[in-house]
Amino acid sequence: MLDATHDLETQSWVASANAPDCDFPIQNLPFGRFRRSPAEPWQIGVAIGDQVLDLHAAGLIDHFDMHRLMAMPVAARRALRKTLWEGLKAGSALQPLWQAALLPQNTVELGLPCEVGDYTDFYTGIHHATTVGKLFRPDNPLLPNYKWVPIGYHGRASSIGTSGHSVRRPCGQTLKPGAEIPALTATQRLDYELELAIWVGQGNALGEPVPLDEAEDHVWGVSLLNDWSARDFQAWEYQPLGPFLAKNFATTTSPWVVSLDALAPFRAPFTRPEGDPQPLPYLDGAHNRAAGAFDVVLEVWLQTPAMAAAGHAGHLLSSSNFLDAYWTLAQLVTHHTVNGCNLRPGDVLGTGTLSGPAPEQGGSMLELSAGGKQPISLPNGETRTFLQDGDTVILKAHAQRAGARRIGLGECRGTIVPARTLATLD
Amino acid sequence: MLDATHDLETQSWVASANAPDCDFPIQNLPFGRFRRSPAEPWQIGVAIGDQVLDLHAAGLIDHFDMHRLMAMPVAARRALRKTLWEGLKAGSALQPLWQAALLPQNTVELGLPCEVGDYTDFYTGIHHATTVGKLFRPDNPLLPNYKWVPIGYHGRASSIGTSGHSVRRPCGQTLKPGAEIPALTATQRLDYELELAIWVGQGNALGEPVPLDEAEDHVWGVSLLNDWSARDFQAWEYQPLGPFLAKNFATTTSPWVVSLDALAPFRAPFTRPEGDPQPLPYLDGAHNRAAGAFDVVLEVWLQTPAMAAAGHAGHLLSSSNFLDAYWTLAQLVTHHTVNGCNLRPGDVLGTGTLSGPAPEQGGSMLELSAGGKQPISLPNGETRTFLQDGDTVILKAHAQRAGARRIGLGECRGTIVPARTLATLD
Repeated sequence: MLDATHDLETQSWVASANAPDCDFPIQNLPFGRFRRSPAEPWQIGVAIGDQVLDLHAAGLIDHFDMHRLMAMPVAARRALRKTLWEGLKAGSALQPLWQAALLPQNTVELGLPCEVGDYTDFYTGIHHATTVGKLFRPDNPLLPNYKWVPIGYHGRASSIGTSGHSVRRPCGQTLKPGAEIPALTATQRLDYELELAIWVGQGNALGEPVPLDEAEDHVWGVSLLNDWSARDFQAWEYQPLGPFLAKNFATTTSPWVVSLDALAPFRAPFTRPEGDPQPLPYLDGAHNRAAGAFDVVLEVWLQTPAMAAAGHAGHLLSSSNFLDAYWTLAQLVTHHTVNGCNLRPGDVLGTGTLSGPAPEQGGSMLELSAGGKQPISLPNGETRTFLQDGDTVILKAHAQRAGARRIGLGECRGTIVPARTLATLD
Repeated sequence: MLDATHDLETQSWVASANAPDCDFPIQNLPFGRFRRSPAEPWQIGVAIGDQVLDLHAAGLIDHFDMHRLMAMPVAARRALRKTLWEGLKAGSALQPLWQAALLPQNTVELGLPCEVGDYTDFYTGIHHATTVGKLFRPDNPLLPNYKWVPIGYHGRASSIGTSGHSVRRPCGQTLKPGAEIPALTATQRLDYELELAIWVGQGNALGEPVPLDEAEDHVWGVSLLNDWSARDFQAWEYQPLGPFLAKNFATTTSPWVVSLDALAPFRAPFTRPEGDPQPLPYLDGAHNRAAGAFDVVLEVWLQTPAMAAAGHAGHLLSSSNFLDAYWTLAQLVTHHTVNGCNLRPGDVLGTGTLSGPAPEQGGSMLELSAGGKQPISLPNGETRTFLQDGDTVILKAHAQRAGARRIGLGECRGTIVPARTLATLD
């Protein structure tokens, strides 16, 4: 599985890519979209160090359609990765040509990696499902289907934005404790959720399931995803058809999509805890068992307005690992299509909140504050149970091990802005 | 509200439009897309009698983008309706010119009215919610939020198709009664759901709710919608996040979108049953109370293979009325956006299954067969509890009253084809 593009020692002629803690070394090569000004259409680029390589300017593509790239067969995708590697490595004859196609990332606007057709959110974080289940259903935290069905539901595509955008505190219906009549209010329990986004590459035709052994061929790559949530709306509205307005006001992804090729050195076996059932045959396979999981460290950082004013970049709220997901990304693709549902290039599958087994590894404030009952203490003396206006949430992720180059996913950042006044609604 | 375009006596120079039982008289003028061959892009047309008026050929538009039409402000939309009316009415000077832009509907392929960005399905049929609630939760049929929150969830946009398409019987996980371990099987409880689709016209910006008094301005029109459902998958998977693979394998809409202007003569007061709570202020308003509901008769027809072989068009399974919906379409738009969620032109909001109060008015087989326990007898001696391979479900709807021209929604038709063999999945 590993080839020359994973070689630890290879350096790039883009100097910033060679820093040891850089998210985007030559071994990564994630895809995204950027523009020089709002008047320009979105262009396709690859992150290298602190730069973007403009693929069109570099002569690598003759269009601006990310869906066309995403729809490429795996062999063509790997050939493009190899071409990028050869052109960007130190000593490449292409340096003079491609130098002109490089732009500093901080001089461009980074957009959504592509237009999203359908967005599905799964629930693969079993520690999250258990902890949250206890809060919503104390007598029945983990339902009997959880260990058999990769639970998922459809989310809202229109309100997905990219890192850096502002999230307006939403208004909605809540039923206050003890009240008999609900009221329309700005959410008092605004939360984030730490997730990965799986970006679909090649699609499948309606009616044609994707077998598990082919599922990874349909994955273009992964990014970070913040599934913003209003917990008070959620508790009141979610039965019987699932979350709706509690979630669809905003979802944020990081701008760079990291391929499974870049993450190949961090593959790990898919295992089930002792005593848990093995997956049904359609979700079981040799490759998935041997190497279907990925060792990726995930982090949530919080920067309050007070921290920002004091020049602090933020406080690490929690950390977890994608290895703790109960299902692999291949299993999500296969389960999603087993009934013939068609995935299209650019569709997004969220993993669900990726919490670790320890209480301090919760991937949401709901978990870290025990449902709002135990305020989280921040080092500067502030506390939080849920997010306040002006708070910035920053998700980060990276993969690291001896013998391989560190691969980062970049940042997924969003800031809460105050709610609209209710007068405009009544 | 009513203007010349509702005049009962006006006839069209398109003769078939003047038949008393025609769905598409000159008072209707619904929009849709068609093509003469699969090699041609989708074109925009208006149904008149058994013909389609090609809007581009008639010189009315210079593009093929339905979303652009849908995004028009209300005044421009009404002006276009007036232009169509003037050009199509008997004696119009435009007849010689537009005659050349007419095509018989049965010589073209009718497509989805537009590409669908996001698809939301609501649950406004209180009789359906109560009956189905009893089957899934005997002790708790109608949850406490139902009479306050227009319950809804997101569905799958990629698998929405148009009337006439085949629906493959899906495979998925079920837990058989008494079993401890689920199995992958073709669904044994395949069902339809009788709904209306609300097609969004003008969108709203992310973060900007649509007040109730403006909500109808964001509705381009309505069509029929069949929310195909696999009840065995649904029972096993739907908790806690709602239906997923039980629904997303296929959704079918009728091809013609009928505007609220065409339905204006059939407006009715929005009322609540005695003893039920009035809506919260953001879902309440004078226009909605006086005229927010629509008197539209809905029908489900079933044509089995045996009926088809005998030359029978089908059997009327049930009939209900949109007046029985618990929320108006304006309330659905306002509730959907109250948290700032953005709707875009071409988004679809399903009403949910529209069953009537009587048991024989169920909008799904699940209801008509009491959860599969009481087979439905058909006039030719056949019975059904759920759909069988080869069955064709036909949804129809029309509005009718003294003093107004009958308005039809056309047909939403789908036929079940056999499941794939499971061998391809394991």
